[in-house]
This record gives sequence, C-alpha cells and structure tokens, in this order.
Amino acid sequence: MEQIPLVTLTTDFGTADGYVGTMKGVILGITPDARLVDISHEIAPQNVRQAAYVLYTACPFFPPHTVHLVVVDPGVGSARRPIALRTPAGYFVGPDNGVFSYVMAREPVEALVELRNPCYRLAEVSHTFHGRDVFAPAAAHLAAGVPIAALGPPVLDPVTFSPPRLEIALDGVTGEVLHADHFGNVITSIGKLVWSGDELSLEPAFQEAGGGGRVRFEASEATIVVAGREITGVHHTYAEVGHGKVLALVGSEGHLEIAVREGSAARKLGLRPGDAVVLRLR
Amino acid sequence: MEQIPLVTLTTDFGTADGYVGTMKGVILGITPDARLVDISHEIAPQNVRQAAYVLYTACPFFPPHTVHLVVVDPGVGSARRPIALRTPAGYFVGPDNGVFSYVMAREPVEALVELRNPCYRLAEVSHTFHGRDVFAPAAAHLAAGVPIAALGPPVLDPVTFSPPRLEIALDGVTGEVLHADHFGNVITSIGKLVWSGDELSLEPAFQEAGGGGRVRFEASEATIVVAGREITGVHHTYAEVGHGKVLALVGSEGHLEIAVREGSAARKLGLRPGDAVVLRLR
Amino acid sequence: MEQIPLVTLTTDFGTADGYVGTMKGVILGITPDARLVDISHEIAPQNVRQAAYVLYTACPFFPPHTVHLVVVDPGVGSARRPIALRTPAGYFVGPDNGVFSYVMAREPVEALVELRNPCYRLAEVSHTFHGRDVFAPAAAHLAAGVPIAALGPPVLDPVTFSPPRLEIALDGVTGEVLHADHFGNVITSIGKLVWSGDELSLEPAFQEAGGGGRVRFEASEATIVVAGREITGVHHTYAEVGHGKVLALVGSEGHLEIAVREGSAARKLGLRPGDAVVLRLR
Repeated sequence: MEQIPLVTLTTDFGTADGYVGTMKGVILGITPDARLVDISHEIAPQNVRQAAYVLYTACPFFPPHTVHLVVVDPGVGSARRPIALRTPAGYFVGPDNGVFSYVMAREPVEALVELRNPCYRLAEVSHTFHGRDVFAPAAAHLAAGVPIAALGPPVLDPVTFSPPRLEIALDGVTGEVLHADHFGNVITSIGKLVWSGDELSLEPAFQEAGGGGRVRFEASEATIVVAGREITGVHHTYAEVGHGKVLALVGSEGHLEIAVREGSAARKLGLRPGDAVVLRLR
Repeated sequence: MEQIPLVTLTTDFGTADGYVGTMKGVILGITPDARLVDISHEIAPQNVRQAAYVLYTACPFFPPHTVHLVVVDPGVGSARRPIALRTPAGYFVGPDNGVFSYVMAREPVEALVELRNPCYRLAEVSHTFHGRDVFAPAAAHLAAGVPIAALGPPVLDPVTFSPPRLEIALDGVTGEVLHADHFGNVITSIGKLVWSGDELSLEPAFQEAGGGGRVRFEASEATIVVAGREITGVHHTYAEVGHGKVLALVGSEGHLEIAVREGSAARKLGLRPGDAVVLRLR
Repeated sequence: MEQIPLVTLTTDFGTADGYVGTMKGVILGITPDARLVDISHEIAPQNVRQAAYVLYTACPFFPPHTVHLVVVDPGVGSARRPIALRTPAGYFVGPDNGVFSYVMAREPVEALVELRNPCYRLAEVSHTFHGRDVFAPAAAHLAAGVPIAALGPPVLDPVTFSPPRLEIALDGVTGEVLHADHFGNVITSIGKLVWSGDELSLEPAFQEAGGGGRVRFEASEATIVVAGREITGVHHTYAEVGHGKVLALVGSEGHLEIAVREGSAARKLGLRPGDAVVLRLR
C-alpha cells in the first residue's frame, strides 16, 4: 500500500486565533490527502527548549515517513534560517534555532537543507508568519514525496543547544527538571532508566555517559533529592503509594519522574524546569 | 463502500504535552487510514465520572463502527484491567474503572474482553502510559477490523458505578447536577424530558423509573429548586428570556438544564456536580 | 483526482465538553471521507465579531471547495435563520447573525440559502444545538457535493454588521483594535498595508476608501498613536527591535499590528477590541 502522507504540528500558537487552522489549509491545498496530527500548540510562547522536548518524546511513536512541522520561532523574519532535515525517525521542518537539538542528539541526520527554493513556499511570503508561508508548504511538499534536496542547499552548521544536565559520578547522578506536564508530573533529565528485576540501570538519553562506569542500582534503595526534600526509592507506577503522596518513578519515556499520586508534584514541591535533581546511590 | 476506520479519543491528558499526539502516532502506525476525532482531552484529571458523561453524550452521534478510546486512568499500572467492549453504538476501549458505566446503562453489551493479547499491544509496555502502549494499539486494531474476541478473554464483572441520582415521586423529581459546560450551562440528571406540545414527559435516562407512575407535566407550571432558588417554567431555548436571566430548559441531550442567557449559570448560582436539583410538579 | 471533501469548524464551544466531537461524528456519519480541520473553538462565548474576524483571516488559505462551518450562535432556537452561502473562496454554513459579514465584504456571494430542507438536517432537531442538528449535516452534505440550492430557498437580506472603523484623511488614518492574539499581538483595522521598498500604501480591506486620495507613506516616518502612547515607524518584523520593546509592524494579514517583542502588547498597553488607533502621516 502506498503511504498516506502524514504531517504533525507543534507550535506555540495556541488554538484560539486560527493560525494553526490556516497552516492546515495551506498543507491541504498542496497535499489534499495529507493526514494532520496536532502534537501541541500550547508550547509556552517562544520556549524553544520545551518544544524540543515535546517533539523528542512524541516523534518516535510516528511512522518514519512522517513530517514533523515545528513552529516556535521567536526569530521569524530575521536572519535565522528555515530548515528541513531527514532522519530514520522522520522528517523535521522548522526554524534553525535549536528546536531539533534533542532529536538530532538521538537520530542520525541523513540530510539537512535550508528552505530557499521559492517553488516550495507560498507565492507571497510575509515577514511574521513563516509557519504559514514557508514551513507549512515545505512540510506539505515533503509529505507528498518531494525529495528533501529539492527544497534548498545543504546546511552544515545547524544551531543546537547543549543537552540537559546529566552528571554521572560514583555516588550518584545529578540532573535537572525538564518539564512539568498537565498532571503536574515532573520529568527530569535522569534517563533512560531501564528496569531489570528490582534493579535499574541508566542509559544516558541525550549524551554519552561522563565516566564513572556503568550505573546500576537497587530501585528501592535509591534516594532522590529535589527541592530540599528526600524521596526514598524509585517506583513503577503512581498507584504504588497512597493518595496525595510524593513518589519517584520511571516515567513513560524512561526518565526519572517526580509525582504526587492524583495530585501535582510541580505545585506541591514548587518545581520548575532547570531545577536540580540528584539521584543518590549508596 | 468499505468503512473508513474511525477512532475517537477522550482523555484527561490536556493538549500541551504531546501525549495525545503520541497516541495518535501509535494508532496511525497500525492503521494508517484511520480517521481520528477528539472528543475531549480536558476531562478533569482522574475524573472518571465526567469522562463517562461526556462519552455518553457524544457517542450516539458517531457511526456504529466507531471505536471510542477513553483514557482517564488513575489506576494505570495497578491491577485494574484494560478492557474493550462492543455495543450496537460502537466499540469502547479503556480502563475497567467504570468509565463506560453510562454507556453500558443505555447500550446492550455484545462483547467485553480484557486486553491481554500481547500481539495487540506495543512491544514494550510502560507502567504509566497504557494509553500509548495498550489502549491506542487495541483501538487501532479494532478499527482495522480485528475481531474483539482476539484481543483477550471475556470479562464478566466489569466495574460500574451507580447511575446519577434520579428519584421520582408524585409531587416531583429529585436529581443532581451532572456537568457544567464551557458556557456555564448546568446539565442535570433529570432526563430525558420529551416535549409534546406544551407538556413534558420524563423518560428516565440512566435507569428504570422508581415507581410513582408516569411523569408528565405542563412545562410552564413546573418549578425548579436549585441552590436555594426557585425557577418557574421549563423553556425550549435561551432566547426565550432576557439577557442575563436565569432559566430552566430542556438541553440538547434532553436533560433538564439550568442556564443564564449569554451568561454562566454555574458561576451565577455557584453550582457544582453533585448538587441537588428538584423539579417540583403541582 | 476527485476532490477530498473538506470541512473547517469555528465555534465558541471550547473543547472540554464533547460538543465539537459530536458535530464531527454527525459530519462523518454523513460524509465518511470528509477531512475535518479546526479553525478555532475558543471564540469568546457569543462573540460573533471575533468569529467573523478569525474566519476572515483563515479561509483564504483553504482550497475553494472547502466548507467553512461556523457556530457562534447566541440566537439558537429563536427566529434567526440558519444559512449557507457559496463564494469563490469556499462555502460557509452557520447562523444568519452577521458572522459572515467580513467574508461577504471581500468575496462575491454566488448563492445564499436558508437551511430549511429537512432532508439535510438530523431527523430530530433540538432547540439548543443547531450546530449538531442543522449546521453540521448541511456542511457535510455540501462537502459531499449536494448543490447549495437543494438546501433551501434563497435569502436576499442576510444580516450583516458594519465594517470595522477605518477613516482615511489627509493627515492620517483612524482605525480600531480588531483582535488580540495568543501572543498578545494586537491586530488593527488599518489594512491592508502593502510594502514597496521602504514605503507602505493602504488598500482598504473591508471597504472602499472614504476620500482623501491614495494613502502612501514612508514607513519609518509614520507615527502610531494608541492608548495614549506614540510609536514611531512601522517595521517588518518583531526581531527588528530589542526584547520587550513596543513596535508597530505590518502583520501577516497585511494589517497594522502593535506588538511587544517576545511579550504581550495587549497586556502591556491594556488594549482591547474597539480601542482607537491612529496612524499619523506627516
């Protein structure tokens, strides 16, 4: 069976104004049979790192022919380049501002181009809405099968930002809060943690381990230090503790997560992205 | 014409984090031609009853081959079973926590199984995101035509919760607030109310009438008592009263509804789910 | 290739209650291969003008066979007519309350009918949810190719409201705030502004120019007066000023826009729809 074109959208546009709908109109005008899936339009305005993280967690669950369109673009209309890249995990289209950093840390980049070819833009390009005029058309054409090389010249020096903090030592691992989700569950950079029996081992997600040998530990004996509080043990799931209790667990992405059963850890502990988290091993 | 696979999604995930997008990626990876429709992702966290109500009102308007995927799942990773059921009104997939209670009170259950067959899950199942790893794959396979019996063994004792309050007596009907919607319109358990001329008759929605004979009354002569206030008459629509006025009417699901024209009854009267509502008949 | 039926949805329903999902179920029950795109469901309750504006900006980017379904309908169940219209820019379905005023000011109306034919409604029509019972079915049938004339008799006197303020004089242009978007960018009625080199010329968007000859000016020399503040010059994009600075620019629709770089002009200047904006020319 021929593949159905599939485009995902991740923006900081919100959904009140019709901006997202407008981009979808552009895509369907170019590729009428494209399937469109929203990943998030509630990225905090101009928060490129948050978009990078959300994209990083969602994209592995899409088929590899998917085109992931990301428009979190504080530099729209300036000299920042519009780019597209191809990886084994899919295509990515958006501004060259680091938003693909986490994806590029995991996936080999097979091609990376600047979106310069005017054939794959709208006829009129505004200075303030490249999502509509540049990125949506590029995504639509890629989804329809246009080769990525047709979109523009190669880019050799994409903007990337440093991976999240993850310092591995003999007595423990220091990371940071990456994201607080809708439930108030707090996802940290300490991952991936992989269960084997009652033990966990750490397979660094965003980078090679920084020395210290292999990290492997008894889940129930670890101590997590966060926001001046010590949490004992790493659990499998929320229901292992009483209602309203704080716990640490391995979240659905394999990262260390701080949660409150049927409550908000972000609110209860006052945690925010960037806050330090220590996993202390005995 | 062959039926186009159709899957609806109802969750308490919000739309900021990419969790819903991730589930859609899983579904489209399995059933690329599935049509996906969001019912709501703004169910209050862990509010199984609210999800049950929203699903109950929306599902009758979908074609009967639709698969309704519901993930409001405070017990994820615990012993609660993942289930799927088939009714004449569609398929339903989600946790066995009562979320299908209202649907099951209306629709005959033709099949009900536990989602145990590992062929219809992702290869790796996390402890905290069965929406992605268990429910989305099951929904996708059902939508693609896999027979429900293939998904796992029958379940004979699904969890259900009691229907909403609806006490029918000679002098009136006592119910409760079910839901306050986006406009602040307050939907009650007193339904279904069916118009015939200027009269209304009550055909109990969630249960058999509890004695008291048939309830039939003059709409303009009824009195609704709610939040210490008396409202006279049941109207057809909002525009029958002045701006900002409180009214009772028969809502779009056939339930007694308390509203404020171009305003919020929930806020004005301070009403919340569970509050008592009395329909007094003379 | 045959055209894929395409329906957009714009409502004030929010997305928490399942009302939008219900309408989509109705559409897909009638036209199973329809493609559905949300434009906005966060129109402020009963704010017909806001819906008119959002629709006006989004619809030009959709293919001309698209059916735009709009349900912002404070008069539901009253005597207001349900209508459908055909223009070169697409079909429009919704209440006859002025919501198509801006579209009709730009597009010639080729056909305009009242939705009276019971064949193109649900069998049972409620008094409070015509989105589900009247408008969604009409949109679905139009998308499937039913001729608009089949839906009901012609309407010759649709409700329209006056266009936004735009007074053109020798020394300047006076307009009003139309909309504050998700970012707090404030879009005004002063448009369309078209760049040619460093100059801008005004091509009135909603009406013929009211005398005063052609308006053409040096962008850097204009002064914008708004909320008791003077802003000098009209820019191309946000990144032309420092972080947190107020600027005026030509927005993505070609309208004069007041913004704060990586901030909210609506909040910083306290601007709301209807507030006066003056573009002073020397």
